[in-house]
Amino acid sequence: MSKILRINMGAEGGPQVSETPLGEYEGLGGRGLTSAIVSKEVPADCHPLSGENKFVIAPGLLSGTYGAMTGRISVGCKSPLTGGIKEANAGGQPAQVLARLGYAAIVLEGKPKDDTPYKVYINKDGVKVVPDNTLKMLPNYDLIEKMKGEYGEKIACISIGPAGEMKMAAASVACTDMELRPTRHCGRGGVGAVMGSKGVKVIVLDDTDMPVRQAKDPERFKEANKKFVQGLQQHAVTGQALPAYGTNVLTNIINEVGGYPTYNFKQGQFEGASKISGETEAELEKQRGGNPTHGCHRGCVIKCSGIYHDKDGNYLTKQPEYETVWAHGGNCGIDDMDAIAKMDFLDDNYGLDTIEMGATIAVAMDAGLARFGDAEAAIRLIEEVGKGTHLGRILGNGAAFTARAFGIERAPVVKGQALPAYDPRAVHGIGVTYATSPMGADHTAGYAVAQNVLKVGGDVDPLKPEGQIELSRNLQIATAAIDSTGMCLFIAFALLDQPETFQAMIDMLNAFYGWNMTVDDFIEMGRKILKMERDFNARAGFTSKDDRLPRFFKTEPLPPHNITFQVKDEELDQVFNW
Amino acid sequence: MSKILRINMGAEGGPQVSETPLGEYEGLGGRGLTSAIVSKEVPADCHPLSGENKFVIAPGLLSGTYGAMTGRISVGCKSPLTGGIKEANAGGQPAQVLARLGYAAIVLEGKPKDDTPYKVYINKDGVKVVPDNTLKMLPNYDLIEKMKGEYGEKIACISIGPAGEMKMAAASVACTDMELRPTRHCGRGGVGAVMGSKGVKVIVLDDTDMPVRQAKDPERFKEANKKFVQGLQQHAVTGQALPAYGTNVLTNIINEVGGYPTYNFKQGQFEGASKISGETEAELEKQRGGNPTHGCHRGCVIKCSGIYHDKDGNYLTKQPEYETVWAHGGNCGIDDMDAIAKMDFLDDNYGLDTIEMGATIAVAMDAGLARFGDAEAAIRLIEEVGKGTHLGRILGNGAAFTARAFGIERAPVVKGQALPAYDPRAVHGIGVTYATSPMGADHTAGYAVAQNVLKVGGDVDPLKPEGQIELSRNLQIATAAIDSTGMCLFIAFALLDQPETFQAMIDMLNAFYGWNMTVDDFIEMGRKILKMERDFNARAGFTSKDDRLPRFFKTEPLPPHNITFQVKDEELDQVFNW
Repeated sequence: MSKILRINMGAEGGPQVSETPLGEYEGLGGRGLTSAIVSKEVPADCHPLSGENKFVIAPGLLSGTYGAMTGRISVGCKSPLTGGIKEANAGGQPAQVLARLGYAAIVLEGKPKDDTPYKVYINKDGVKVVPDNTLKMLPNYDLIEKMKGEYGEKIACISIGPAGEMKMAAASVACTDMELRPTRHCGRGGVGAVMGSKGVKVIVLDDTDMPVRQAKDPERFKEANKKFVQGLQQHAVTGQALPAYGTNVLTNIINEVGGYPTYNFKQGQFEGASKISGETEAELEKQRGGNPTHGCHRGCVIKCSGIYHDKDGNYLTKQPEYETVWAHGGNCGIDDMDAIAKMDFLDDNYGLDTIEMGATIAVAMDAGLARFGDAEAAIRLIEEVGKGTHLGRILGNGAAFTARAFGIERAPVVKGQALPAYDPRAVHGIGVTYATSPMGADHTAGYAVAQNVLKVGGDVDPLKPEGQIELSRNLQIATAAIDSTGMCLFIAFALLDQPETFQAMIDMLNAFYGWNMTVDDFIEMGRKILKMERDFNARAGFTSKDDRLPRFFKTEPLPPHNITFQVKDEELDQVFNW
Repeated sequence: MSKILRINMGAEGGPQVSETPLGEYEGLGGRGLTSAIVSKEVPADCHPLSGENKFVIAPGLLSGTYGAMTGRISVGCKSPLTGGIKEANAGGQPAQVLARLGYAAIVLEGKPKDDTPYKVYINKDGVKVVPDNTLKMLPNYDLIEKMKGEYGEKIACISIGPAGEMKMAAASVACTDMELRPTRHCGRGGVGAVMGSKGVKVIVLDDTDMPVRQAKDPERFKEANKKFVQGLQQHAVTGQALPAYGTNVLTNIINEVGGYPTYNFKQGQFEGASKISGETEAELEKQRGGNPTHGCHRGCVIKCSGIYHDKDGNYLTKQPEYETVWAHGGNCGIDDMDAIAKMDFLDDNYGLDTIEMGATIAVAMDAGLARFGDAEAAIRLIEEVGKGTHLGRILGNGAAFTARAFGIERAPVVKGQALPAYDPRAVHGIGVTYATSPMGADHTAGYAVAQNVLKVGGDVDPLKPEGQIELSRNLQIATAAIDSTGMCLFIAFALLDQPETFQAMIDMLNAFYGWNMTVDDFIEMGRKILKMERDFNARAGFTSKDDRLPRFFKTEPLPPHNITFQVKDEELDQVFNW
């Protein structure tokens, strides 16, 4: 995993493949690597859909090893949604397979002359970039079936649906899971549109005959991995809550504390929450022969994913995540779990970010396009996006775009990206992350819900501004580093509470690479990544004015606590002043 | 004209009318006054459609006098198109009438609870704000006919069409002309959407029994005005070219120098230019019983406007301006003068900025929605906007929005606002103005075409970067000051070449107000206005990165000169460093 595969899609005479050594990017992986390449190689003022933008795909530092939880893959580019730097990551199989094929990153460069879709096939024998017009506008599920037919079942795929081909700013990049379904998405920031602008419809990876990556110190690696796994298994969140109910365990919890954004962020509790909770969802999955405890990639020991069957017991979609259930559920006033699962399937199939789409539908409901709670109408709106109707072109470009199209004010976005499933007025720490993350509103960028609500890694009152800046800062730094390892962010629950588990993860890195990294070094890596990202955004024209929540969070009290977001602008400006 | 009329459209129990003295705004008019009020009273980070934004209407310092050319009215607000401060001005009758009613400005504040349209009626007896649901979605021409029926023919109106009611970012504010037709538009920046967000459909002004405004020194004012008029009449542009052919005299000139943006800024000359030139247009108007030499307001001595009849000799629209003819003509590859006139009528009727709409249609053509040159398709696209279909919602929000909706790169905009009818690669001076004006791409903000092409007020090579910064800077400063007087900007041609005409205008101000203003003081007023505007934009988050042309102007050579825009970013950053 010491080389970068570069494919120039804009080369004269067709795509040109080359390999470059990691060079100056040595020691970086995942988000660290995507952000370094984008920050260094992409002109910050370029158009996100132009040939000057680059689309970077990078497995994490430990992906492709047998280390637990190492199946995250990052994609990076200048975002068509935010106009800033973007990293989005997903689980599924591609990280492991790409890493075993020896690539630290794939970089798609340039811009093709026409809209012919290409498939990229990579196996032990090399790289093929093949034009294939039969792929045009295929939804992800059909596309993957076709790839299985062509390349067999031992593949992992990275692909875009019609939304990415239409270059919509809510378009995601799909990664296949262990069942070879396109269910794990690098969702946020319109990364699918950038992949689409490069003319690449799907990347098919086959690591047959490629060995598992070997550590420099195999014994030490094995030992560290064992301790690490033990740590995850003994923690209540990673060992019990997530396996049992998946991420949707949060619905009841966040609703209970009054931070569950309902009806486009108008109240903090949803009367229908229990009907779409993780507990309900898991029960439904068991009843129908699905599976509530399942890993999204080989090597996962948390198993927060699952399989969701329809009423007839047939596969409908993977277990919808908390954010998805919220976005299409409470935020739209919808309490019908099957309808939400259907929307999850449609989003995956068209290649859409479920958070952005849910937020968009709620905005559309505010604009009068549908009634809050009308699940059928919500499904129809997503179908418009998939078809690329004019309405679909509006909705597929996200919540802020939709608000502007219909002349309404209320767009819950930061840097153009929709807020996820925690109201910042009731969970102040996550509000600081939403406002200040270089990624735009992103809960994963510094998950202060842990300390604010779950009381993991500390206890900071969610309803008060005190302590939130420091909390978000430290989480954002640690997250940037974790996002570089290829490890699932959910390990952080155990890391925050159990120093020995944190140390075990560092030991895995050290054993694998022959490093002597300390926890401080690890944190310093996070700081460097954030600095690169912030630097890119500054060159793209971002200022402190972009590090703000929409004004209504400061003026409109949220029931039931009836409080506004209290963190002052001057405090927000201190997040990166470390 | 010493008081401000404030109407709080968001007050409990319905609109609340109050009057405040000019106070700290004393000595300001037109753009100076709108920008001062917006900069001081509107939170720079508010949503443009929120109750925190204000919609300011201000006649110029000399409006309502018998001074020549004093019929310009400014509107100002935070722009929904650019996100920055916006002033747009128009001719027609409202400036004179509002000034004679004694108001230096009308400020619409707050936000109504529902979407009931209001009409505001102002005469010598006072102000009435009346809800009237029969006005809903009326096009401007029908609306004005209705107002004539209700209030008689001695009125002047300021109104919005359906586009403003739908809060589209290309919506204009219409002002009636001497024939009481809604043909003179404060076009740019989506000002119509902000008026729409205040719930005000039309302001009806009747100055019956109100006297002409009297100068402090009537004799001196009379003398200065006489000299001023003589100066305008003796200059070739204001005395001959504009009266004969209107602004569209520019088509042949700009096409000749290779700076006529054609096919969405792909080439600098249009093969069909002669078919839509001012000469052709004037001839057609004469043949059909229209009128090529006509003033848009009482007191105009240039008479660059006109009346355009259709093939059957019936009124179709006012004489389409150069920018309109270009936007719907060459920029869309259309050389059919009647089709262009039809589009001008539709834009006026729906209440749309002709420049933004033409640029938008060209972008839509690039996106494949219509063929370049297809006039019928272009007309249909504008009709979609008027109807408010989903496609219309896209197009009505402007060129950049449309480009994003359809995932294409090529959007000729600065600060979100479409470039007017001079390609910056062939007319470098205007490129500097487009890039740096606080208003977004706006030719009127510093009309360097004068020196670059017309050789009025100097001679600066249009194809080279040298001298353009200073040129644009001085023009932007002078323009901000002229835009405050209520005088039509076209006086600048005579002012630039004839110091005695410039002095005569200053003398008019001094005689009227009893001031001792020098030319330097006048220029200092311009600087102060720009400073306020730049300050607002900085608080709204604008940086030097926003003072840039789209990248393709720097990378894609423009035929026939085959040159790119050569002014360096560092130089652009010096425009306001005076």
